[in-house]
Amino acid sequence: MEKEKILDAYNFRHACKEFDVEKKISEEDFKFILETGRLSPSSFGFEPWHFVVVQNKDKREMLKESAWGAGPKLDTASHFVLCLTLRPKYMRYDSEYLDDFLRNVKKLPENVIGMMKGFCENFQKNDFDLNTDRAILDWTTKQSYIPLANMITSAAMIGIDSCPMEGFKQKETEELLGTRTFGIDIEKYSLSYMVAFGYRKNEAPQKIRRPIEEVVSWQ
Amino acid sequence: MEKEKILDAYNFRHACKEFDVEKKISEEDFKFILETGRLSPSSFGFEPWHFVVVQNKDKREMLKESAWGAGPKLDTASHFVLCLTLRPKYMRYDSEYLDDFLRNVKKLPENVIGMMKGFCENFQKNDFDLNTDRAILDWTTKQSYIPLANMITSAAMIGIDSCPMEGFKQKETEELLGTRTFGIDIEKYSLSYMVAFGYRKNEAPQKIRRPIEEVVSWQ
Repeated sequence: MEKEKILDAYNFRHACKEFDVEKKISEEDFKFILETGRLSPSSFGFEPWHFVVVQNKDKREMLKESAWGAGPKLDTASHFVLCLTLRPKYMRYDSEYLDDFLRNVKKLPENVIGMMKGFCENFQKNDFDLNTDRAILDWTTKQSYIPLANMITSAAMIGIDSCPMEGFKQKETEELLGTRTFGIDIEKYSLSYMVAFGYRKNEAPQKIRRPIEEVVSWQ
Repeated sequence: MEKEKILDAYNFRHACKEFDVEKKISEEDFKFILETGRLSPSSFGFEPWHFVVVQNKDKREMLKESAWGAGPKLDTASHFVLCLTLRPKYMRYDSEYLDDFLRNVKKLPENVIGMMKGFCENFQKNDFDLNTDRAILDWTTKQSYIPLANMITSAAMIGIDSCPMEGFKQKETEELLGTRTFGIDIEKYSLSYMVAFGYRKNEAPQKIRRPIEEVVSWQ
């Protein structure tokens, strides 16, 4: 692939504040965007994420109250995604979930599973000091920013705009997701971020970044 | 750009365990990879990262002791990158650093700066409960996983392999980086991850991911 065209997509992408309500993303294109999320890597390959696409207008309306930064996106996005991340109970090195995941999803042999869990125990307890629930959740959530980047960049590569959002009251929003209306298991999942997709209504503002000399040094 | 070709890159990418020492990434290609990191988005646009490319053999050797997962990559990667993330002192809503950043890098007008800092204060204190140094650092580090994803995916798009790593003792490695040899200001920066780039020595193993039905649900 051509570097210039790839960089064009990086320059095309911006945090789109409002989408053109007349333009919807095709099923094929949105499937492609999700696929780049699905194929994303994660620490130990645990894929600790689940994406909920909220298309129902009433539900989008309900999200506005606690998602102060999402209003115009909830109103205008072609597709609106919530990224859920597995909670510590599932992500601790000795969890039943990971045991099942390594055995039945990754289909690893028993000796490799034992080895990986050993690495993971040492990593969580010692190397990265993941000794509280909050620390484990934050580590898990970091992983979910990988599919975020991949989905918004890949969308830009096919001319689709996006807006990632952390602008929501996390606790209140999770409580809403736990109600019967949404029916999400918030004992299992935390809400990492929201991300909207569609086609821009207005021109993008000028992109400003620090120059490369300030971003990179060599040794 | 063609969706099929983009997905080919996602399938090409894997955590490359060992690189072909005979093959080096061209300056132009590596500049391109770094550029996709530089152009990555981040919460509030704070760009809280700095990349150190470690090419010196002796320094790579020194990293091995605390970076248990990096050995063969340190030995064989064409380019080896450390991602540093700004510490809480710099990332709190009322820090001098952010004030300067918004004023002199982003060149925002005073009223917008005031508004953004207000949003940021509320976000950190209330919405996301970033009320400890650890929580702020973890939030900052999440942002750094966005350029990580972009760099490894973009590398794959031009046929370059990579391996992101969390396999290091964080505290010990940061202490090493703070020595005169590396000279990194570890009062300012934390080490988020390492990522190696090069050309694979061996074939990639089969990629295994949960099926899309388990990754996505619709409402």
